[in-house]
Order: sequence, then structure tokens, then C-alpha cells
Amino acid sequence: MRELELIEALERVLARGGPRIIRSRGDDAAVVRAGRYAVTSVDALVEGVHFRSGELEPEEIGHRALAAALSDLAAMGAMPGEAYLALALPPGYGRDRTLGLLRGAERLAREHGVTIAGGNVTRAGELSLCFTVVGWAEDPALLLGRDGAHAGDLVAVTGALGAPAAYLRLLERDAQAPWLPREQRAALRERYARPRPRLAAGRALAAAGAHAMIDLSDGLASDAAHLARASGVRIELSLEALPLADGVAQTAASLGVAAAELAATGGEDYELCVCVPPAARGAAEAAVRASHDPIALSWIGQVRAGRPEVVFCDADGPLRGYEHAL
Amino acid sequence: MRELELIEALERVLARGGPRIIRSRGDDAAVVRAGRYAVTSVDALVEGVHFRSGELEPEEIGHRALAAALSDLAAMGAMPGEAYLALALPPGYGRDRTLGLLRGAERLAREHGVTIAGGNVTRAGELSLCFTVVGWAEDPALLLGRDGAHAGDLVAVTGALGAPAAYLRLLERDAQAPWLPREQRAALRERYARPRPRLAAGRALAAAGAHAMIDLSDGLASDAAHLARASGVRIELSLEALPLADGVAQTAASLGVAAAELAATGGEDYELCVCVPPAARGAAEAAVRASHDPIALSWIGQVRAGRPEVVFCDADGPLRGYEHAL
Repeated sequence: MRELELIEALERVLARGGPRIIRSRGDDAAVVRAGRYAVTSVDALVEGVHFRSGELEPEEIGHRALAAALSDLAAMGAMPGEAYLALALPPGYGRDRTLGLLRGAERLAREHGVTIAGGNVTRAGELSLCFTVVGWAEDPALLLGRDGAHAGDLVAVTGALGAPAAYLRLLERDAQAPWLPREQRAALRERYARPRPRLAAGRALAAAGAHAMIDLSDGLASDAAHLARASGVRIELSLEALPLADGVAQTAASLGVAAAELAATGGEDYELCVCVPPAARGAAEAAVRASHDPIALSWIGQVRAGRPEVVFCDADGPLRGYEHAL
Repeated sequence: MRELELIEALERVLARGGPRIIRSRGDDAAVVRAGRYAVTSVDALVEGVHFRSGELEPEEIGHRALAAALSDLAAMGAMPGEAYLALALPPGYGRDRTLGLLRGAERLAREHGVTIAGGNVTRAGELSLCFTVVGWAEDPALLLGRDGAHAGDLVAVTGALGAPAAYLRLLERDAQAPWLPREQRAALRERYARPRPRLAAGRALAAAGAHAMIDLSDGLASDAAHLARASGVRIELSLEALPLADGVAQTAASLGVAAAELAATGGEDYELCVCVPPAARGAAEAAVRASHDPIALSWIGQVRAGRPEVVFCDADGPLRGYEHAL
């Protein structure tokens, strides 16, 4: 397929713009009515580094690439607006799979009111998808960074952790996993293949007075360490309080690893980790519950003054052995 | 070098933000004070597809990647604001070359008042740089698309054409080129290695009443065909009127190709091709001359009613043999 034909086929998959769009695909650049502040993030998924094609359908690869980028906007508490895709296709990738990538991204975009407003297609030696996502905000004081955590803040995470890590361990060790009920296996896979960016929860938490936030892409231990460093605080997390996704405990037991380790260091959860002043705890819970995509909020630790680091504790105090991910 | 160290080293190369920047690197997303309209384009350079590392210094690769993206903003007549880089590094690429990529891009960014406000670094099998660039405009009526050309418009190009194509032919056939004066060889190489995005000329032409514009990345024949298709017009260009860059005529003669063919189909010139109503011809020339980066404007043809296509003519009428690039 020639490049021009491919681009025309891709454009048919994509929705025509939203109310912000003045010009989109078909020109040198897209033109969009702006909000007062632009919130922009870039995220790339590379075959062989971030995923293997055999493990995911093209639709899932497209979904995951956009979800990872939108998750960064969720962590700022921004309202998403547009996405731009730089697609690099290896020889022979073919029209059907290429359209599958786009369809997966387009479906997720539509769910969140996002317009895929432009992009770029190129040949390459390996498949990669790079999404630039732009959100809009009227007041930068309502956007959260990593640097606002204060001693005394409570730490929470959205949703449940460990499913993507558990699923990847399954693939490595025992892909059939006959001991795992089929629904649980499907649930683990779904969490890995189609992560949900927590955009509504992110905006709700920012509006409810949270101090700092980050999304969990590298794993709670690593990502909380970014919060600790940027804010200059010590973060103490309770391993026992970590919310485990369905199927994680069973998978961990069968594979002989600690479930809490999968939840603490596994990565790719795309949940949010947020620091909230104690007085705003109730408001944060209510705001997330009232958002149009309600999700559980689990309180997993506290922010302390001290050397910037993350320490996992159980009832007996600080634990050793979780430092390696930092 | 670990990823975090690399990111810290990269951040030291990049300038601290401009007046628009509220948050930049170090958070999940950059936050920027917006103009009324955002103009956004994405452009990717992939090793082995768009360049070969052995032919360019890392600084030049960084420059070219950003220049290609900014050239799209130039073609819209937009004021550039920020750039976001997704960098994919192959194993062993190393710290020095990586910093070189950034330095080349940062220098060009600074020349044009652009802030590299964020990005992403990942491992990959091959080197690639993907720049998302964002420009700002207060009035979308002052932005040019490809679709505004009218029958009767005059067609112009900025600068001079054919140098990158001539240089690539040199590399293929006779890299030493002893018959070419050293300065001319250096000039050809410079045009290939460090293209200049025509941002000031693009804004001047848009403000002077031009109807449609595109930047020359694929080559005049292909890019003018995009204008013709989007506008639904026939574009007639004079081969004899094409402005040749220094050294192109000599190189073409020595290699036995037509100089005009290099200029018409060569690509990677990153000049602008613009359609201007006859009444605005003087204003367009004056505006480009008065801009802070004055550049020659050559009148190379006309827009006609008719089937959307590009036809090259000489004094005797339409020529055959240039269709292949369309």
C-alpha cells in the first residue's frame, strides 16, 4: 500500500473533529481552539521494549499506547483534548493491522472525548507508536505536579494493582495457567491489554485539594520515589494496604512470589498515586465517587519529613527488599 | 548510563523555559500558557529511512529533526512556541552522541524562540527522533492551509532548491567530487544537514494575504500536488523559473542529470511553496523582505482552473517526464 493510500485509510478510521478543531488532518498542522493553559505529554511504545506483537492484538497496542499517554494527563488533573500519533511501521505490517492500531486508539479516544487530530506515518525497522496528548486547563493552580507533597499528607492509590505484572509472569512461566479460573485470567489480561487512564479520578482529586500526584507506569515503588524526590519528602507505604487486582493473589501464590511484590514493583498499572492533606481525605473520596468514572480509592501510607525515599512497612515496621526497584 | 541519569544529563542541555512555561520537564506533563489557537504538528526522523548516522553528526540529526517539524508550522504561518521530543535510542548509542542530538535541536530552538518543554526517552532497535511542535495564533484566519489556492493565483517558492538532492546524489556516486569547489560542496552539505525552517517568511506571507502554502519536504512536484488536490486546482510551474541553490547546476552537469529535475523532485528543501493572489504579489515580497529572516521569493508559476494536478512547463508548453514523482 502506498503511503498516501494508507494515510487516507487511516483518516477514515478517525472521527471528524470535536468542537475545538478548526483544522485537523490533511494540512501541515492541526489548528485547535485553545484553553488558557495547555498540558502536554509524550509517550512512546516500542515493539520489543514495551510490548511484543504476538501478545497483543493491534487494537490493544493502539489502546495501550494512547492510554499510557493519557494517564500522564490524568496525573496532572487535566481535561484531555487532542492526541497526535507518530506511527512507525515495519515492512509488511500491512493495512489491516495498521487500521487495527488506529481503531483501538480511536475507541479509547472517543470514550474520553479526545480527538486524534493529527500525526505522522513513517516506515521503520520496528513498530512504534508515539502519542503526544494535549489537555487544557483554565487555572494552573488546579493542576497537580509531583512536587507538592507535604509531611503529614496521606497517600492513596486508585483502583487495584498488580494485574499487568501478574499477567506478564504468567506469560513467562505458565501461559496456560490451568489452576487459574478463566475469568480471572481474562481479567488479568484485560488489565494488561487495555489499561484505563484515570482521567475523571485525576480531575476529581485535583479539584478536591490533593497536593501531588503521579501515574503508575514504572511501578508504585519507582513512581512514589519520583514523588518523594520531587517533593523532598519520605513516603511510607503499607504493603498490607495495597489493593490487589482480581487474580493477583492466586497467580502470585501459584508462581511462588509475594502478591504485594507484584503490586509494589510490577508496573504498567496506570493507576494514580496521590498525596492528600488529611483534612481533604473525605472530599477526595467523595469527589472520586461522584466523578463520571468512579473508582476505588485505597489509603496506603503517609508522607513524612525526612530523606527523600520510599519505605514499605508492615505491622512490624520498615521492610527490606523493596529497594531494588528504586 | 541509567535512564534517570541520561534524562538528567539531557535536561542540563535544555534551556529553562520561556515566558509561557508554567511547568516543563520533571513532571508527567508540561504546562504552558496558551494562545487563542494551538497549531500542532508531528514529524519523525528514523535512522535508515530519513538519514544515515554515518552521514550526519548527532548535532545535525537533532537540528534536522526539529527543523522538519518547525517547517510545518512555517507552512501554516504560525508563531512557534514549544517542542516535545520523543527520542528512541538504540543499544550503545551513548551519552555523548545523545547529548549531541539534543544540542543540535536546542540551538535551532533557541534561534526561533522555541522551548523544548518536554519529551520522552526510550530504548529501541534503531535511532529515531519524533518532534511534536506547537505554535500559537490569535486569529485562525491568518493561518494558511493547503486548500485555499484559487485560479489566477501566482505561485512562489522561498530560497533556492535542489541542494539536498544534489548532495545525496554526490554521496551516492562520487563522494569526493574533486570537480566541485570546496565551498560549493560545503554549501550543499550545509543545506542538507541544517535546513532552515522558513518561519519568519511563512508568517510574513500569511499576513500579506497569501491563499495557500506548503513546505517542501517530499519535493516541489509532490508537495505542489498536495496543494493542487486540496484546493481542487491545476498548478502550472515553469522549470526555468525554479531557483537553483549554489552548486546544484555544477553537480547536476557533472552527474549527467538535469538541474531542474533535482529542484523539481529532489525533496528535503524545507522551503515554502505559496499561492498568492496577483494583487498581493508586491505586499508578499515586501513582507518577506521586511521580516527578521529575509529570504528570496521566486515566482515560478500560476494556479489555473482544471483537473487537480501539477504540470511543469518550459517556453514551449507542458513537459512530459515529471509525473513520476506525483
